[in-house]
Amino acid sequence: MGLGVSALPFTFVAHLLAVAAIVMVLFWNIHFRGGLAWEATNKNLIFNIHPVLMLIGLIIMGGEAIISYKALPLKKEIKKLIHLILHAIALVLGIVGICAAFKNHNESGIANMYSLHSWLGIGVISLYGIQWIFGFVMFFYPGGSESLRSQSIPWHVLFGLIVYVLALGTASLGFLEKLTFLESSAGVAKYGSEALLVNFTAIVTILFGTFVVLSSISSAPGEDDYSPI
Amino acid sequence: MGLGVSALPFTFVAHLLAVAAIVMVLFWNIHFRGGLAWEATNKNLIFNIHPVLMLIGLIIMGGEAIISYKALPLKKEIKKLIHLILHAIALVLGIVGICAAFKNHNESGIANMYSLHSWLGIGVISLYGIQWIFGFVMFFYPGGSESLRSQSIPWHVLFGLIVYVLALGTASLGFLEKLTFLESSAGVAKYGSEALLVNFTAIVTILFGTFVVLSSISSAPGEDDYSPI
Repeated sequence: MGLGVSALPFTFVAHLLAVAAIVMVLFWNIHFRGGLAWEATNKNLIFNIHPVLMLIGLIIMGGEAIISYKALPLKKEIKKLIHLILHAIALVLGIVGICAAFKNHNESGIANMYSLHSWLGIGVISLYGIQWIFGFVMFFYPGGSESLRSQSIPWHVLFGLIVYVLALGTASLGFLEKLTFLESSAGVAKYGSEALLVNFTAIVTILFGTFVVLSSISSAPGEDDYSPI
Repeated sequence: MGLGVSALPFTFVAHLLAVAAIVMVLFWNIHFRGGLAWEATNKNLIFNIHPVLMLIGLIIMGGEAIISYKALPLKKEIKKLIHLILHAIALVLGIVGICAAFKNHNESGIANMYSLHSWLGIGVISLYGIQWIFGFVMFFYPGGSESLRSQSIPWHVLFGLIVYVLALGTASLGFLEKLTFLESSAGVAKYGSEALLVNFTAIVTILFGTFVVLSSISSAPGEDDYSPI
């Protein structure tokens, strides 16, 4: 892979979109949906943790983890550690976010695991975990042989990008599913300000992910002892 | 781009998944949803044209158009013509499919263009059309200069893949949106056979798209005067 253009401008746009997405998802869940709580009599507040943590965790932190390995002007060993830690944070926030959805469903008597969003979500978090473990064992500790590492790096990148694009698709499904429920049973207006906010949050999320992918297939700023992509 | 492995095995898997997806979407709309019709007193039959044409058109024909340029053992000029015609068919079926959704909405008094699915759908069909026109003008007739063509081909491939992945995401949103309506207002069971069929059709569609993308970043079987990717 490699587009032959510099990754840096793409990463700057991605950071701006990340900030916008975080502000939008927080504003939606605090201003329109009543806030976040792990324990509450209003079970909706438990659910609200789900979109906030999935977006800030799996999508934004996961995207920043991808970008960091490409764009930071640091030694490979340090970049590797940052890449690993950011992906670990993304994974943990993602797992807690999924637990919040199950907790809300179980305490509210809502069925689990019937929708495409839930199926893909469980698939994505599992593949994300497998990819993290593979990356840790192969590239960090104990580490494969030099030839094994250079052979497996394009597959690590490709599989990572596929899982990340699946995560973006799953997030989009989640925005649409939640808004459809709100419009069909909670009286949220189809062209109202909340509906527009949720749809634009999804669009900003997709744009962020697009710039993350563009960064990852563009040229790194510095030289390295083997190309990361 | 280029994975360093042969594209052909990926294309065979993609063809099999395409057949499965076509059978599944037809079975869903004919057996479970009552069939297809352009004029009908039961307006749902008009809607049913939408998922069938979007899947068979934009997703399957569009995917086969991408694969064809990579995998067919033909001269470049012939492959280009096939690529162009298959994408034109995809685009026309997609436009007719979108018209069916609007026709159903207008005749049933359902609001248009409020959901993320509809927003992304209009975006995707517009970008698909722009990409087709760019491809026609630059690579077919009148054709850009040799240097302009070789400079723009990676961007044509990249933009095409981004639009195609967006189309796959939009299709997934459509499956989820329609099934959510059916489950919340038409009494379709959340774990029933129709729900499972629709979710698995979406999964097969995503897998098909994944193999199309894998084909397009793998190695072509023959040599050519410039690499298509």
